[in-house]
Amino acid sequence: MKSVGRELTRVDAYGKVTGEARYTADLEPKGILHAKVLHSEIANGKVKSFDIAEAMKVPGVVKIVTCFDTPDCQFPTAGHPWSVEKAHQDICDRKILNERVRFYSDDIAAVVAEDEVAAARALKLIKVEYEEYEPIVTVEKALDAGATPLHEDIRKDNVIAHSHMIMGGPDFTFEKAVSEAEARFGKENIEVIDRTYDTPRISHCHLELPVSWAYVDANGKITITSSTQIPHIVRLCTAMALGVPAGRVRIIKPYIGGGFGNKQDVLYEPLNAFLSMQVGGRPVRLEISREETISCTRTRHAIEGRCRALFTKDGRLLARKLEAYANNGAYASHGHAICANCGTVFKDLYADEMGSEVDCITVYTSSPTAGAMRAYGIPQSVWFTECLTDDICAVTGEDPCDFRMKNCMREGFVDPGTKIPFITYGLKKCIEEGRRYIKWDEKRAAYKDQKGHIRRGVGMAIFCYKTGVYPISLETASCRMVLNQDGSMQLVMGATEIGQGADTVFTQMASETTGISCGNIYIVSTQDTDVTPFDTGAYASRQTYVSGKACKKCGELLKARILEYARYMLANEVSDISKTVYAETVREAKNRLKESFGITDDEDIKTELIDLEEDCIVMAKEGAAFSDRRLFALSVLADTAFHSLDRSQHITAEVTSHCKENTFASGCCFADIEVDMPLGKVTVKDIVNVHDSGILINPKLAEAQVHGGMSMGLGYGLSEELLIDEETGRPLNGNLLDYKIPTAMDTPKLHVKFIQLNDPSGPYGNKALGEPPAIPVAPAIRNAILNATGVAMNEAPMTAERLVKAFKEAKLI
Amino acid sequence: MKSVGRELTRVDAYGKVTGEARYTADLEPKGILHAKVLHSEIANGKVKSFDIAEAMKVPGVVKIVTCFDTPDCQFPTAGHPWSVEKAHQDICDRKILNERVRFYSDDIAAVVAEDEVAAARALKLIKVEYEEYEPIVTVEKALDAGATPLHEDIRKDNVIAHSHMIMGGPDFTFEKAVSEAEARFGKENIEVIDRTYDTPRISHCHLELPVSWAYVDANGKITITSSTQIPHIVRLCTAMALGVPAGRVRIIKPYIGGGFGNKQDVLYEPLNAFLSMQVGGRPVRLEISREETISCTRTRHAIEGRCRALFTKDGRLLARKLEAYANNGAYASHGHAICANCGTVFKDLYADEMGSEVDCITVYTSSPTAGAMRAYGIPQSVWFTECLTDDICAVTGEDPCDFRMKNCMREGFVDPGTKIPFITYGLKKCIEEGRRYIKWDEKRAAYKDQKGHIRRGVGMAIFCYKTGVYPISLETASCRMVLNQDGSMQLVMGATEIGQGADTVFTQMASETTGISCGNIYIVSTQDTDVTPFDTGAYASRQTYVSGKACKKCGELLKARILEYARYMLANEVSDISKTVYAETVREAKNRLKESFGITDDEDIKTELIDLEEDCIVMAKEGAAFSDRRLFALSVLADTAFHSLDRSQHITAEVTSHCKENTFASGCCFADIEVDMPLGKVTVKDIVNVHDSGILINPKLAEAQVHGGMSMGLGYGLSEELLIDEETGRPLNGNLLDYKIPTAMDTPKLHVKFIQLNDPSGPYGNKALGEPPAIPVAPAIRNAILNATGVAMNEAPMTAERLVKAFKEAKLI
Repeated sequence: MKSVGRELTRVDAYGKVTGEARYTADLEPKGILHAKVLHSEIANGKVKSFDIAEAMKVPGVVKIVTCFDTPDCQFPTAGHPWSVEKAHQDICDRKILNERVRFYSDDIAAVVAEDEVAAARALKLIKVEYEEYEPIVTVEKALDAGATPLHEDIRKDNVIAHSHMIMGGPDFTFEKAVSEAEARFGKENIEVIDRTYDTPRISHCHLELPVSWAYVDANGKITITSSTQIPHIVRLCTAMALGVPAGRVRIIKPYIGGGFGNKQDVLYEPLNAFLSMQVGGRPVRLEISREETISCTRTRHAIEGRCRALFTKDGRLLARKLEAYANNGAYASHGHAICANCGTVFKDLYADEMGSEVDCITVYTSSPTAGAMRAYGIPQSVWFTECLTDDICAVTGEDPCDFRMKNCMREGFVDPGTKIPFITYGLKKCIEEGRRYIKWDEKRAAYKDQKGHIRRGVGMAIFCYKTGVYPISLETASCRMVLNQDGSMQLVMGATEIGQGADTVFTQMASETTGISCGNIYIVSTQDTDVTPFDTGAYASRQTYVSGKACKKCGELLKARILEYARYMLANEVSDISKTVYAETVREAKNRLKESFGITDDEDIKTELIDLEEDCIVMAKEGAAFSDRRLFALSVLADTAFHSLDRSQHITAEVTSHCKENTFASGCCFADIEVDMPLGKVTVKDIVNVHDSGILINPKLAEAQVHGGMSMGLGYGLSEELLIDEETGRPLNGNLLDYKIPTAMDTPKLHVKFIQLNDPSGPYGNKALGEPPAIPVAPAIRNAILNATGVAMNEAPMTAERLVKAFKEAKLI
Repeated sequence: MKSVGRELTRVDAYGKVTGEARYTADLEPKGILHAKVLHSEIANGKVKSFDIAEAMKVPGVVKIVTCFDTPDCQFPTAGHPWSVEKAHQDICDRKILNERVRFYSDDIAAVVAEDEVAAARALKLIKVEYEEYEPIVTVEKALDAGATPLHEDIRKDNVIAHSHMIMGGPDFTFEKAVSEAEARFGKENIEVIDRTYDTPRISHCHLELPVSWAYVDANGKITITSSTQIPHIVRLCTAMALGVPAGRVRIIKPYIGGGFGNKQDVLYEPLNAFLSMQVGGRPVRLEISREETISCTRTRHAIEGRCRALFTKDGRLLARKLEAYANNGAYASHGHAICANCGTVFKDLYADEMGSEVDCITVYTSSPTAGAMRAYGIPQSVWFTECLTDDICAVTGEDPCDFRMKNCMREGFVDPGTKIPFITYGLKKCIEEGRRYIKWDEKRAAYKDQKGHIRRGVGMAIFCYKTGVYPISLETASCRMVLNQDGSMQLVMGATEIGQGADTVFTQMASETTGISCGNIYIVSTQDTDVTPFDTGAYASRQTYVSGKACKKCGELLKARILEYARYMLANEVSDISKTVYAETVREAKNRLKESFGITDDEDIKTELIDLEEDCIVMAKEGAAFSDRRLFALSVLADTAFHSLDRSQHITAEVTSHCKENTFASGCCFADIEVDMPLGKVTVKDIVNVHDSGILINPKLAEAQVHGGMSMGLGYGLSEELLIDEETGRPLNGNLLDYKIPTAMDTPKLHVKFIQLNDPSGPYGNKALGEPPAIPVAPAIRNAILNATGVAMNEAPMTAERLVKAFKEAKLI
């Protein structure tokens, strides 16, 4: 491959570095109005009334709307493809503004003003009277028999869903496995451990805040420019929220400053549109502050997992069981999908000899809504599996790396429920590569029997991750390509660049398939639902895989059309080519081609004999040098196709690719750390992620992708947690001063390795890479701490406070 | 037809009336820079040097560029499709700024500043030193043997082109015809007249001035938002002017406030792009003032025609000859095409028994550049033919209406040169209709032998007009249609709405062909060369005809794809439809359809049995009521097609239609006027245009189109003329105070009639209407003045000054 695999500089690099690239806020028109949202100051209850009299007196205030003014339409917010099957439709449990308050900071009213200051001043003057219920912030409280149902209109309790999955036969239960194992191996030869691991509620911390601006044109068409990962889905859900047909809504997505799944939800677009409708269609902007983003948009699910494992003392993994409780917060958003995903990987990642069992429960609570976040339930899942595995090894005394090599998911694995296959199996190669890189065996030996307050340890964690969402959900993507007058190409993807480098890899894919050089491909980065082909958007690790297939299919079609036009130009009977400025060029090319293939003068040239390469029409002759095969420049063909008096043709191609394939990616993290026990401080001395992600489209971008994920993993493991007061439901650290994401100062040098196996299901041998890097880092560090100190931390993040407490309990300090 | 022929309210009416519709200037970003152009203060010569030192000191000035800084690329400006045939390529005779000054106001330098005032102040401080030559403002002077060639680099004299056309056999000459007629009819039975008619240089006077703004992104891509009729051609010509590939240039055309052909030229877009490139890509706006628009953009050609006619005394038209001299001004722009068009219609409009002869010469002069303007040379041509015809009748004493009925172009006429046929012939029906409406015969009788200073008269004029530009030039158009999630459609035309109502008629056409209702069709009005399919743009009277064919072809394809999906939904073996929320609806529809057509349960349903009508899938069963034929809503299909887990398909269609047809439209104007001879004042008491334009897509818009054209014709006949001082080349009335367009106060009630014949070459039976209304009004008034006073005015406009002079010469006052 020529373009795929190249370290092409990001196509948006210069624009982003120079500040020229235009984001949502850069595109706002003059005279735009400013909106601010009023959030509830109770966590559970009902708005009884508003007094807006004082607020309306603030000069510059144009309009105040409350939850009593918004349409009575319930809508879903999850950035899934909508489904025409009832069972797959997302839960419609939210209104544009909510009279029924379900968490501290629920949206209850909004102010539109000529400027931000007026809007902010008015917000403070609105008086609200509530009917208050007891906050139910924890899963435990929400599952209490007497708990208020948060969504009494659609659910009689607070359980969103409960699912049960097993491997090991239809009758498998963990308890039965234990009895059977006792009989088979003897009670003395087996062990059962039962641990509960906990994961935090965290914030996505994307750079650009959720911002949108909307206007309504004189025909009633609503246009929203928004920083979203999923423009086409925002279109549909906004229409549902407003009770208008989808064709009336247009979403424009310019460059966006990250999303990590938070913008895979419909956030404030429906409210923004509604506010514009209330002020005669005038443009209204709605930018959510960092504090609102943390508390009022989405979080990663805090999932608690009770994990049990059954194994032989000599290290055969027999069975495991997970009971997972996901705190979904106030609204369903992605609902149970995330906790179910967590459960699926728990059972898939190891080849339990007897079987495994998973119970997943997703629960409404009066806390911030959890939604999609990079790796969608799997950081939690892998926290469970990888803590559990090292805890097993702590019992058996076996090397955790050896244990995993023996017991991890096998080559040829196919998920029995989803039928997703592990097509190219790089997992064990990754483990071997990481083990070698970190010098595992030397270090495990060296770090034995340490004394003192500062100790070293190495730890590891593995993971698997599916690539797209098929067959759980629809995977569809579209692409349009247009040949320009100069032989360059416009590439229009429904898939969205959200900072991850999608535009660059699609450019490389389009080049690879068509033979048009990357420099001559102009990707249209902005998605505009008025003209951009349909794609569900940037989520899962789907775009290079699913949308990549659309790009490839479209490229093949465009190329076929170009070659067909070339054949026409080279045909014997073309009246106008001979009159054009290219007559001599084409005649000469035809002669060389006929001579080269031994074609007689009365034979026409078939498309099989020609190809498109390096922006030129060439002879399809293997082995010959490019210069000998070159016939004429694509620009000659393009100019002719546009302007020919005989056959003018605007050569374009547009396809939908409905993807009905999926494949597992996998990998691992190895970390070498130092623990200062009295300080509760963990210093990462060396760390490497090794990924089995198929062929890399752009190794430089792939590495950057992994860096970002590892950094996220460090925060997940060591510092990040959004704390909610259990009594009041108030966020305790809902700002970037108190909520701790790793800074550059906290981040060690990050190492990345790849095992590149050509996955035949991927358009270019590629499979998931977008999300996986964030998965294994936290448990690898946890296991390194265990190695260093013998202390098993069951709760992430492993903050200084928790570490010191644990070390004290272990009497190490 | 259901949608075609309806008086649908303009789709952009509300937006334009409320001010919500966004034009070029409405889209400018914050912090944009302002540019102003320095124009030469000599009419012929060369810039020797600039002194910009003082100008650069003005606070806020960012950059000054002069003709010595611009690229040495010559480019064409005509809004023709570019040609790959040398002979058809437009003349490249202009640079972004010109050192060689060729008319008074040539572009020689430009200032970019933070605000308009700074730019204007700096402009005044630039000192220029010239080498001056004698201005050659008139055709006569330019053709002088000793005249300086204005384009010495590409032409040794000032003749752009000279063409000679004849009808009546290869050896026909007017002189030979006269000799032959003398022999055949006897010298005493024939007459020859020889008259010279003159037409003015006029300004388009579109409401919105030429305005554009440009920026260059960090990858070097140049984006220009411009008020242009021809975005795709501006893209190509701007690339030529800057010496960059076309793919590097992106043109965005929002709503525009008229163009009338002036914006069918590449005006200031290349300079604007160049200026942005000179300031690091920052956005720069360049709005041309009204005065600059009049003097520095384009004008209608002043063409002088020496016309001779040979006829029998009893009114048989034997032969005519035209010698036309077109003053093209300083740059070629559309070049000779306009004068040649003028000549073609001169010979086509009458069926001279022996033949006709035309000599057309187009000449560079040092005066404002003439270019395209509504009806492209035909107002001049018809001024010649229709003055001549009434002057013939003045000699023979025959009724001009009768003379035309006998001698005008015949049914079945085919132009011998272009082979354009007059397919549906409405010309004589138009004459009859106009004659009846104006009460011609009664009034001609009543207005005989008037005395006194105030007299009445009726006059008429006829015309013919071809529809597109085939086969003289390429006619190609593209269209893309996209089915939305709710069954509505995005309609994306390469063709441009420029105020004429194109978006509305395309909406009707798309509705007619697909069966999707007009209210569910969202036309994308803005053309953006990055994503909009290729079309050469709004000019000629081509769009409803040429682009209409693309719309129809695309609609047929989209509909076929929708029906194919409907067939799939109705097929026996579809696993997922039965699981969807539409299962019952589709099952019930299938049963009704099978029953209705007597299809057995194991037979599948063929697409021929279904159709799309009123946003519904229906049975294709003639005669049955809609309610009986209705199967299910298109929205059901659209939702399924987007989201089906079995077959997700983004249903779209995109086509190019290469049009190789053309047809004549025709019509006439009848005017009843009153002349106040001492005041030289003409009052139009009644006026009607009758048009043979095939089937009207939207009668209300068609009428409005004719109103606008008639108003333009009134100005052409009575008041409009851009005067240039012959000594200095300076415009004498280059502003809207001194240049007189008709105001509402000057405009009588305008009447319009149509003869609707279904032209089989038009996509919906339609043919030219955009330009024709402007053609016949001026000569009809001239002939009415002749009828009222016996005075034949040979020069347009017939201003009070000219009329009083003529009446004095005729001793009427």
